[in-house]
Amino acid sequence: MALHLPAIVTLLALLLFIYSFLAVGMARKKYGVAAPATTGHAAFEVVYRVQMNTLEQLVLFLPALWLFSEYVSPLWAGLLGLVWLVGRVLYSVSYVQDPKSRGPGFIISFMTALVLMIGAAVGIVLRIMAGL
Amino acid sequence: MALHLPAIVTLLALLLFIYSFLAVGMARKKYGVAAPATTGHAAFEVVYRVQMNTLEQLVLFLPALWLFSEYVSPLWAGLLGLVWLVGRVLYSVSYVQDPKSRGPGFIISFMTALVLMIGAAVGIVLRIMAGL
Amino acid sequence: MALHLPAIVTLLALLLFIYSFLAVGMARKKYGVAAPATTGHAAFEVVYRVQMNTLEQLVLFLPALWLFSEYVSPLWAGLLGLVWLVGRVLYSVSYVQDPKSRGPGFIISFMTALVLMIGAAVGIVLRIMAGL
Repeated sequence: MALHLPAIVTLLALLLFIYSFLAVGMARKKYGVAAPATTGHAAFEVVYRVQMNTLEQLVLFLPALWLFSEYVSPLWAGLLGLVWLVGRVLYSVSYVQDPKSRGPGFIISFMTALVLMIGAAVGIVLRIMAGL
Repeated sequence: MALHLPAIVTLLALLLFIYSFLAVGMARKKYGVAAPATTGHAAFEVVYRVQMNTLEQLVLFLPALWLFSEYVSPLWAGLLGLVWLVGRVLYSVSYVQDPKSRGPGFIISFMTALVLMIGAAVGIVLRIMAGL
Repeated sequence: MALHLPAIVTLLALLLFIYSFLAVGMARKKYGVAAPATTGHAAFEVVYRVQMNTLEQLVLFLPALWLFSEYVSPLWAGLLGLVWLVGRVLYSVSYVQDPKSRGPGFIISFMTALVLMIGAAVGIVLRIMAGL
């Protein structure tokens, strides 16, 4: 049952990613940057970087989330996943306002991903030691 | 047994992705764009954008496919996955012919991914309501 | 129990990916390329391309690793995964030294990913033929 929470967090993370690339599509029109270009207007480039960073961090987050869920706790995986989501929303909003302010949101999510990875690593070691 | 279909679709989606980045490698030579540059020739940039978009949509698709498979139906996950593949092939072919014609292929695959996500969300809610 | 090895390899692959994007952050400062730009200094662009290629190959590798683990052998998935990691480290080191020398590392990892995919495909076919 508890696996439902990481599943819900996964869907929410995908929604955030969808938002990030739909924003790029809208920014293409707003700032006159026709595909395939990804440069040409500073405001467009910011929206594009938010998308790319969301993609990168999503690729880090999802395996870490599910390994933690499997090896430690699905409930805690889900709760940490919600913290990750808050950090990513903060990152996205602050990057668009000012690229220099993107730090805190990034760090919240990145640290959460590290906690998921460290937790999973500890969980794996404990299972191996227990002969499981 | 039915899990075999999403597994096959996953392998086909990875093959499409491999094709997209091998095409970039070939376009580097054809259009004289040496690494690490990703700009410098319009035809190269189109092939590069196809790869990047395939990457983005693959990261969206695979978790959605497997959540739908787990929470709704592996068979329907696989069948919807085949629709997604058709859309992505159409997108890739039409983008190279004319970037402005990339819409329909993108929309077919994106809508399919949304159906997978919405189906998974409904499946999760139904299980929680059933106390599973 | 044997699933622990692909899980460990997954965590190591995520660590390599983290290294690749932290290197981009450091290169931004070192070479004076402020976000959201991803061009402007050749040495920065190399580090950025290593990150992007690591991202792409990670998205290919992880599903291939786990499908092979499920359909063939978690132990062999893990061992092949270690080969993949060696190739990616070689790729990253050699790309920074000279972009033209990135071939061997890339090919080792890419061939390993293909072996994982082909193995998974054979495993799926064998199971379907066995009526499993």
